[in-house]
Amino acid sequence: MIKITLPDGTIKEYSKGSTAMDVALSISEGLARNVISAKFNDAIVETVTPLNEDGSLVLYTWKNPEGKKAFWHSTSHIVAQALEELYPGIKLTIGPAIDNGFYYDVDLPEGSISDKDFPTIEKKALEIARGKHTFSMRAVSKADALAKYNSEGNEYKVELIENLEDGTITFCDHDSFTDLCRGGHIPNTGIVKAIKVLSVAGAYWRGDENKPQLTRVYGISFPKQKELTEYLELLEEAKKRDHRKLGKELELFTFSQKVGQGLPLWLPKGAALRERLEQFLKKAQKKAGYEMVVSPHIGQKELYVTSGHYAKYGEDSFQPINTPKDGEEFLLKPMNCPHHCEIFNHKPFSYKDLPKRYAEFGTVYRYEQSGELHGLTRVRGFTQDDAHIFCTPDQVDQEFMNVIDLSLYVLGSLGFENFTAQVSVRDPKKPEKYIGTVENWQKAENAIINAAKEKGLDYIIEEGEAAFYGPKLDFMVKDALGRQWQLGTIQVDYTLPERFDLTYKGSDNQQHRPIMIHRAPFGSMERFIALLLEHTGGNFPLWLIPDQAIVLPVSEKNEKYAEKVLKSLENNEIRALLDNRNETVGKKIREAEMNKIPFMLIVGENDEAANTISVRRHGGEDLGAISVDDLADLVDTEINSTLKSF
Amino acid sequence: MIKITLPDGTIKEYSKGSTAMDVALSISEGLARNVISAKFNDAIVETVTPLNEDGSLVLYTWKNPEGKKAFWHSTSHIVAQALEELYPGIKLTIGPAIDNGFYYDVDLPEGSISDKDFPTIEKKALEIARGKHTFSMRAVSKADALAKYNSEGNEYKVELIENLEDGTITFCDHDSFTDLCRGGHIPNTGIVKAIKVLSVAGAYWRGDENKPQLTRVYGISFPKQKELTEYLELLEEAKKRDHRKLGKELELFTFSQKVGQGLPLWLPKGAALRERLEQFLKKAQKKAGYEMVVSPHIGQKELYVTSGHYAKYGEDSFQPINTPKDGEEFLLKPMNCPHHCEIFNHKPFSYKDLPKRYAEFGTVYRYEQSGELHGLTRVRGFTQDDAHIFCTPDQVDQEFMNVIDLSLYVLGSLGFENFTAQVSVRDPKKPEKYIGTVENWQKAENAIINAAKEKGLDYIIEEGEAAFYGPKLDFMVKDALGRQWQLGTIQVDYTLPERFDLTYKGSDNQQHRPIMIHRAPFGSMERFIALLLEHTGGNFPLWLIPDQAIVLPVSEKNEKYAEKVLKSLENNEIRALLDNRNETVGKKIREAEMNKIPFMLIVGENDEAANTISVRRHGGEDLGAISVDDLADLVDTEINSTLKSF
Repeated sequence: MIKITLPDGTIKEYSKGSTAMDVALSISEGLARNVISAKFNDAIVETVTPLNEDGSLVLYTWKNPEGKKAFWHSTSHIVAQALEELYPGIKLTIGPAIDNGFYYDVDLPEGSISDKDFPTIEKKALEIARGKHTFSMRAVSKADALAKYNSEGNEYKVELIENLEDGTITFCDHDSFTDLCRGGHIPNTGIVKAIKVLSVAGAYWRGDENKPQLTRVYGISFPKQKELTEYLELLEEAKKRDHRKLGKELELFTFSQKVGQGLPLWLPKGAALRERLEQFLKKAQKKAGYEMVVSPHIGQKELYVTSGHYAKYGEDSFQPINTPKDGEEFLLKPMNCPHHCEIFNHKPFSYKDLPKRYAEFGTVYRYEQSGELHGLTRVRGFTQDDAHIFCTPDQVDQEFMNVIDLSLYVLGSLGFENFTAQVSVRDPKKPEKYIGTVENWQKAENAIINAAKEKGLDYIIEEGEAAFYGPKLDFMVKDALGRQWQLGTIQVDYTLPERFDLTYKGSDNQQHRPIMIHRAPFGSMERFIALLLEHTGGNFPLWLIPDQAIVLPVSEKNEKYAEKVLKSLENNEIRALLDNRNETVGKKIREAEMNKIPFMLIVGENDEAANTISVRRHGGEDLGAISVDDLADLVDTEINSTLKSF
Repeated sequence: MIKITLPDGTIKEYSKGSTAMDVALSISEGLARNVISAKFNDAIVETVTPLNEDGSLVLYTWKNPEGKKAFWHSTSHIVAQALEELYPGIKLTIGPAIDNGFYYDVDLPEGSISDKDFPTIEKKALEIARGKHTFSMRAVSKADALAKYNSEGNEYKVELIENLEDGTITFCDHDSFTDLCRGGHIPNTGIVKAIKVLSVAGAYWRGDENKPQLTRVYGISFPKQKELTEYLELLEEAKKRDHRKLGKELELFTFSQKVGQGLPLWLPKGAALRERLEQFLKKAQKKAGYEMVVSPHIGQKELYVTSGHYAKYGEDSFQPINTPKDGEEFLLKPMNCPHHCEIFNHKPFSYKDLPKRYAEFGTVYRYEQSGELHGLTRVRGFTQDDAHIFCTPDQVDQEFMNVIDLSLYVLGSLGFENFTAQVSVRDPKKPEKYIGTVENWQKAENAIINAAKEKGLDYIIEEGEAAFYGPKLDFMVKDALGRQWQLGTIQVDYTLPERFDLTYKGSDNQQHRPIMIHRAPFGSMERFIALLLEHTGGNFPLWLIPDQAIVLPVSEKNEKYAEKVLKSLENNEIRALLDNRNETVGKKIREAEMNKIPFMLIVGENDEAANTISVRRHGGEDLGAISVDDLADLVDTEINSTLKSF
């Protein structure tokens, strides 16, 4: 008999050689129907792998990320089989699961695969799936494994096997198909009910451009057809909301090859939007006792050697800037914290002066390979809404709560209601990994957890996920498409105060080390605006949106009145445009819809006579003929209902 | 006879060999008494140099910069003679006039010169001056010149002479003293009535640290003792107002050796002051039709090769930033214009869209040698209040006037009333020096001059001072100490639109080149704030000053009420502090005076009873007991009277 510990702590006995599926069955038939993968003693296993020793077991269904991974990895085997059958002579290379689906890199003997071929591949793969073939793992000797692929002339698998140790090599069989594989499959192919080939792309073998180019086939699969349909609809919607597309259409930002990739240029509407976001946060920060500072975008290399950033990032980042004389070396700043430490250091502080809260919209530069760049979400220069709080150990608790309050206010005012907090703490088994005293760590971890509780956050604790320099809390936000993003972060730091020898005089007249809290509710202006664009589809909250209203005269005769309306809107501090082109009102409305303008103000003869505007909301709602003052009230009310109180 | 043309265009005949002094005498005895130097056919001459050909002559008095230069250069001869007499064996090297006075670099045989020796040197020099010795130039052969200094063992003068061509070498004699000299003296030593040795410093021969170190003796002189006294008072005042000293005392900014020299760190009060200045200008710019943009602090090297900045500054500036992969090269941006050109280029514009006015508070980085750095006035990173106007040739006129309006508003609101404009135009004799068509140059120069006239500016035209890419107008400001500073600039540019291939579609449906106007009313935030600090001595205009008021409770008993007052001030949007330290009111007032706080609000028992505050203005004026609301009115009135309308 072996002892199996389940996640809830219960321990059950099973006969040696029982499988994860046996365990599931012993719990309930319903669970057994849904279990598709498992983890035994920290290693992923098949549901049919015999368990031969005591250990802890976790069962996964489709709902777990681990379950999805097994599902998609298994589907890649099915699709590979389909490809082998459809393209004789094809050479398979590798086919992993990815965040959304899987891919398989193949070397086609001739011809190519295009989107016209996708339905044929999908049909063939589904036929195989319906066969309900079991996935079964078997160990093979290195010699046998090489023999199989040498005989097939597949130099890729041969290369992979040559790099493996004899005795660790396994094959996976299902139906007539066999593949080199480390394992991690679902019970049988029949669970896969819907398969979609999404795209094909070129990919170099092992990512090396000197090696052969392969065809990468991307796909995804689901246990129900309905889920695939929903996913494809989501993909379609995500494409429409792609911030790169919307950013261009709404004229928010642009890129220039001459200036450099990954370096956004903010156009007037985008720069004004950024400024509104910054002023919004500045105002809240002022209330919360922050002080703005300004620091340069470079610093001496030594500054980052002191902070430890150079050792960590230096070689892989933008290289040092030399001077023509004086022999100095500077770096583009990758972080604002070293500068803020030096600001704290500019004069002696006592405990009565703390906390000091230094905030800066600090633009930092970090090198990313050109292939990694993506719109505003992966850039080489971005502006953090950064702040560093220098406080006594006793103040961490209250400061953390204050930061959560500020973060909730910020996220709430921007329409994010659906978020969780991830609290990253030490791995209690590995105390040697962390710097700072155990008391301070306990104090800080408790402070974070208490603050999360106190503020009613939906939080999870991740053991061992803390950085070596301190515990942290990250806000994870679900956007309108249900995608999860990591947004603002709050981190406790014991290292930098040590490295920069920061001190304050305590009430005992002795020098003490302050504790530092890093925090950024937006994270970065670039990434946040990208996310906001995709979350809202460009329909920003009214207080933030570039143009709140557009005046649409029905004909040339109403232009004078339209200008009067525009002026009156400006006096009411409503950001408005006038479309006095010689086009039909219908066309103007369609364009205003595309430009996501919340209020379309149609002015014709009746309006002129009655001194009103005929208001159409974005989306089509007709608000009838009202006065500009009424519209101003409406705008005010809506803005006040969106902006949370703080 | 020779024909002499005077600056007013009159031509007079004189016998050959007449001197500048003869010409002055022929005009008036008063002029002759005051003439101390002259320029004949673009070369500086002595007043006693015989004029042997036709030419144009300008006479200089003490009031002209050229007159001062001759005066101070001549004094350096007198002081050199004094040093020779006081320090036998001393070796003279060079002794030029500088902006304020002169220096002489000497090699002392032994010992040193300290401030205790200054009076002796001054006394000896004045004795020599009173001898009314004439300065007279004479030509010497290279051999004779070398012989003199070789026999004296002065290797410095020998080195200087060795680098001169035979036939061009002159000596100047006065009294018993002779020096190697190109000329440019006042008539005689007696005109110098006051001499002051200001300081001594070390200086390497020829500025080369591998060469011997010399002693540099700085001095200044005046035609009247009273002028020296005034100058010394001004120096004393300037020391008190040194922005580096005030910036530290008022906690506006600091420097960190770790971050790097020449890279200011703005402390909370300074950052808030900057922000107020920026918001002030942003508001005015919005009214004037500018649009804010945001661009990165780096750009590809190619960008600056295109703009021409790399060819001009590249080698002497911060060196390129390499990337670890991708082989790209970036530069810290020394200017914002290339980025704004690329923003203009992001989509096609028609003449109806122009002018486009892109503004940015853009931080730029330019390398300065460490020895050149000085507080906020010579830094390595600074933020320009930059904007670029892209317009049609017909719009230059109006745009220029608008920019002058904006600049006058900005300077006026900050208390600068005393300024002139310097208009730099082509040298009409050298058309090959400039790019762009003659018509466009004429249009732009006329536009600038008309705008300066129309706006009632006190302007001077400097021929040949325009940059090769276009004419410009610089605002020259006199500060409270009478010192002249170059502030805001407005420049027309034909080059960058060409280099970046900028176009717009004209009403003729053809593509045309826009004209670009660069402008920055402050110049840079750093330099402007430094100047403002020295101009106001830290007593910034009320709308700008960090802390407008400070509440000073008379005793502990009044603290509660003091806090109520503070709250009430905050509600009235008055930036206020509370000094509740256990110190006497007298001491608190003295410190508030030092901290330049405009309103000191003393609250004692009577105030608490009457719900008033006893107001003392910075400087000592007693405004009596008034209510917080009354103070708020007073503050409003003062701010409104300072901020000009725009």
